[in-house]
Amino acid sequence: MSYNLLKGKKGIIFGALDEKSIAWKTALRCHEEGAQLVLTNAPVALRMGEINKLADAVKAPVIGADVVNMDDLKKLFEESMKHFGGKIDFILHSVGMSLNMRKGKPYTELDYGFTQKTFDISAISLHRVLRTAWELDALNEWGSVVALTYIAAQRVFPDYSEMADAKALLESITRSFGYHYGIKNKVRINTVSQSPTRTTAGSGVKGFDGFITYAEKMSPLGNASAGECADYCVTLFSDLTKMVTMQNLFHDGGFSSTGVTVEVIEAMEKAAQ
Amino acid sequence: MSYNLLKGKKGIIFGALDEKSIAWKTALRCHEEGAQLVLTNAPVALRMGEINKLADAVKAPVIGADVVNMDDLKKLFEESMKHFGGKIDFILHSVGMSLNMRKGKPYTELDYGFTQKTFDISAISLHRVLRTAWELDALNEWGSVVALTYIAAQRVFPDYSEMADAKALLESITRSFGYHYGIKNKVRINTVSQSPTRTTAGSGVKGFDGFITYAEKMSPLGNASAGECADYCVTLFSDLTKMVTMQNLFHDGGFSSTGVTVEVIEAMEKAAQ
Amino acid sequence: MSYNLLKGKKGIIFGALDEKSIAWKTALRCHEEGAQLVLTNAPVALRMGEINKLADAVKAPVIGADVVNMDDLKKLFEESMKHFGGKIDFILHSVGMSLNMRKGKPYTELDYGFTQKTFDISAISLHRVLRTAWELDALNEWGSVVALTYIAAQRVFPDYSEMADAKALLESITRSFGYHYGIKNKVRINTVSQSPTRTTAGSGVKGFDGFITYAEKMSPLGNASAGECADYCVTLFSDLTKMVTMQNLFHDGGFSSTGVTVEVIEAMEKAAQ
Amino acid sequence: MSYNLLKGKKGIIFGALDEKSIAWKTALRCHEEGAQLVLTNAPVALRMGEINKLADAVKAPVIGADVVNMDDLKKLFEESMKHFGGKIDFILHSVGMSLNMRKGKPYTELDYGFTQKTFDISAISLHRVLRTAWELDALNEWGSVVALTYIAAQRVFPDYSEMADAKALLESITRSFGYHYGIKNKVRINTVSQSPTRTTAGSGVKGFDGFITYAEKMSPLGNASAGECADYCVTLFSDLTKMVTMQNLFHDGGFSSTGVTVEVIEAMEKAAQ
Repeated sequence: MSYNLLKGKKGIIFGALDEKSIAWKTALRCHEEGAQLVLTNAPVALRMGEINKLADAVKAPVIGADVVNMDDLKKLFEESMKHFGGKIDFILHSVGMSLNMRKGKPYTELDYGFTQKTFDISAISLHRVLRTAWELDALNEWGSVVALTYIAAQRVFPDYSEMADAKALLESITRSFGYHYGIKNKVRINTVSQSPTRTTAGSGVKGFDGFITYAEKMSPLGNASAGECADYCVTLFSDLTKMVTMQNLFHDGGFSSTGVTVEVIEAMEKAAQ
Repeated sequence: MSYNLLKGKKGIIFGALDEKSIAWKTALRCHEEGAQLVLTNAPVALRMGEINKLADAVKAPVIGADVVNMDDLKKLFEESMKHFGGKIDFILHSVGMSLNMRKGKPYTELDYGFTQKTFDISAISLHRVLRTAWELDALNEWGSVVALTYIAAQRVFPDYSEMADAKALLESITRSFGYHYGIKNKVRINTVSQSPTRTTAGSGVKGFDGFITYAEKMSPLGNASAGECADYCVTLFSDLTKMVTMQNLFHDGGFSSTGVTVEVIEAMEKAAQ
Repeated sequence: MSYNLLKGKKGIIFGALDEKSIAWKTALRCHEEGAQLVLTNAPVALRMGEINKLADAVKAPVIGADVVNMDDLKKLFEESMKHFGGKIDFILHSVGMSLNMRKGKPYTELDYGFTQKTFDISAISLHRVLRTAWELDALNEWGSVVALTYIAAQRVFPDYSEMADAKALLESITRSFGYHYGIKNKVRINTVSQSPTRTTAGSGVKGFDGFITYAEKMSPLGNASAGECADYCVTLFSDLTKMVTMQNLFHDGGFSSTGVTVEVIEAMEKAAQ
Repeated sequence: MSYNLLKGKKGIIFGALDEKSIAWKTALRCHEEGAQLVLTNAPVALRMGEINKLADAVKAPVIGADVVNMDDLKKLFEESMKHFGGKIDFILHSVGMSLNMRKGKPYTELDYGFTQKTFDISAISLHRVLRTAWELDALNEWGSVVALTYIAAQRVFPDYSEMADAKALLESITRSFGYHYGIKNKVRINTVSQSPTRTTAGSGVKGFDGFITYAEKMSPLGNASAGECADYCVTLFSDLTKMVTMQNLFHDGGFSSTGVTVEVIEAMEKAAQ
């Protein structure tokens, strides 16, 4: 179903790896809603992924960019504006990677070089993207930027490890840059704090299965899917949410406001027997 | 501009007093987006207001109901379902009134009888509405309920007085009932925490002018208008936000995430001279 | 062990029912720390409880007062000041009661008359107490007021039912009155959000056992005990915390900042087998 | 006045630069309360500061350590334990520095190399300190760690620039490590979010004067002083707050819970004339 909510709008989607990706589904939904798109990802992800399938589906060019490389980002925005013949209306930042988690280093034994890379890729990259747009004056007034985050930024989920700190940093950058870009160009910047999602990236987290089941049982509506997250991002890119900025928005079936559910208490009691 | 976002949906709008009301504008926007509506307000407000003008514009019946009267609410839901020929998809709760503020009683000198009425009308009324819907099984699966609130529920704005406590109560009821209705029928319930708005009700607050100016200067995007709030409510009633529930959503131009702005600091410095 | 932290201070303790009560243990600790006390509770609780044992131990008079009766409260403060020969330095508000829970009425079937009583006794009572002190000018500068609350004010714990809403209201009154009393007399007012505690009152909550076990497993330090809560209240009544006001302070072994623990995930997995 | 609250306890104080420092005053208060101390700071700060005066006053050795150097930190903890003849009970982390702010680079023009240093010194340093203690098993059970932070981690104060992001990161590390250290050794870790304070470090922030005046007017009790912060830290290091962990504790005269004050509204109105 399409509402033409994004008709005439132009957006850049970061982080579509494969068809399980939230970014992938968001690109599809934005296209359905009438937006023109540019897809981007790290060169290494472009090689691994199947992004050309998506590019065909949404009729978008793929422009590789390493989010920690300012030259790449500048090229991305310049080429995107050239492609669109104008400025950009929205950006999805769906980027995150932890070398410590990949290498199995627990939170109390972080490699600080890896940590620096985690923060650079997963959080400071948002600053780099916004600053590039700012310098090129690449965003239209009332442009909308959404970055994906997770509730581990507020409460500890032990297996999420240093990514929790990266997400807290990402959410702070969202507020900080949101202030400046709001005043300058009415650009709004928000994070969407999504349920744990069975993406290729998410599945890499140790203990992910037990954890996604717990979240499901702890959410009155169940876990939000990648497709539902795509729908929600569409509303945030649309003109109907213009005054929402500098917010962390939970898209999680109610998990964040639930202390416990009857289902979890019953499971705990069963386990105790 | 219309997107048909609410095509085929049926909703009840509480609290449209006159054309400055957020509820009024929300009714107009819901109608534009394809929804069928029932309008309701307290009998006394129906007499004072100009709701028939709105009723004509959105082709909706007006059914009076006192939100603290369970019989009235039952009748409202039964007649609405009869009118619609089916269940209800969304509800806007835009109801609030403080007798203490009207009578000029400051927060440290509350009349507790008035306070009880304030809480009953402004907060417990949401419980009454939801419970009536629950008992009549009046809401469709994935139905969406939005109640309007204000950031005084989190931080003190002295002139907002006991309404702050009423809004804190309202937000808690939103979470509490949201849990139960989410599990039972996938119904989602949220509050929208709106910028101070120059409605007929809002204007009654003492010191409102100084206050709305302060909020404007403290919001990177400025204060959100009633019309923008209506747009936002439309997204929350739509199928694109299905997994958002039990949340308090700030629609405030960034006010809630702003500690201070350069503009406010400068005004303070000017005042100090 | 005593530090003389409250030497020369005078306080009123509301809500000591029996030796499991947090208020009971707080009275003992305040006495050990050098404070003079007045004990108070509802007439009916005085008859049920063993408060005279406590009164002997802490050498304090017992003055009955119904927290919803302004004359009782006035008499309580006047007699307390007479007993102390001066103003009051601190107050513990440990008062809460839900008729709906007692009568087994679930959240979706509240009796609204009961609800009004619940809010009056459990939340508005704090306003009544503060307002009585305000009118009699009964608190010394830098006086400290603590009310006990629970995290259900932020997140839903289904069995906690309407008390969640009462606690949200209590926390809002804490902020609202804290603003006015801070400006007027430097009085500070805070809530302590305590782990679930096996008091006589707490045990009345349906499903309390499964729930306290869950909280224990979800808290990195385990649940905080009533005695530990008493210790914490002592610090808040002391001169060492003068600038803390209008806060909700979690005293919960880390529960509030924990999304999940390894122990809970393992129990969930065990239950799923 | 001393209560012997920290009698027999051993602590390490990071960041005492001169007598305006919060760390300096905390060291004095901890000493008065009976604690034995080790003082530490970066070698460059040791050269600039007057720490030997403090060392004399509190009878503590000074052990230089660069908080981003793991060998330095290991030496610091080993020598401290040798000096104390045992493990450590508490740590104050009062460390922060922004090269971007020093060099006058605004938030939208950050030098990313500087940013990395800011985060490493101001936030990741807490992880390094805790991890060093963890590996050496240097903390006693129920040990207490406090790091100083600022409300810019939650709301934007434009002049605070990238330090806001650093503080958000610091608060997240507090929670994350607090979980692990709580489970392992009952160690509790919290941040204190202090009013803006006229320290030598604080004064370096551009626009600091207008800002501190605004905070004063926005706080019902006024801004908290460095000495009052020291008092508060003493309570957090004591045995009376054992179950408080993974929290961000506002010590700010009520600023964080105040939306606006009458005084600020009046200043705004005056400025508008």
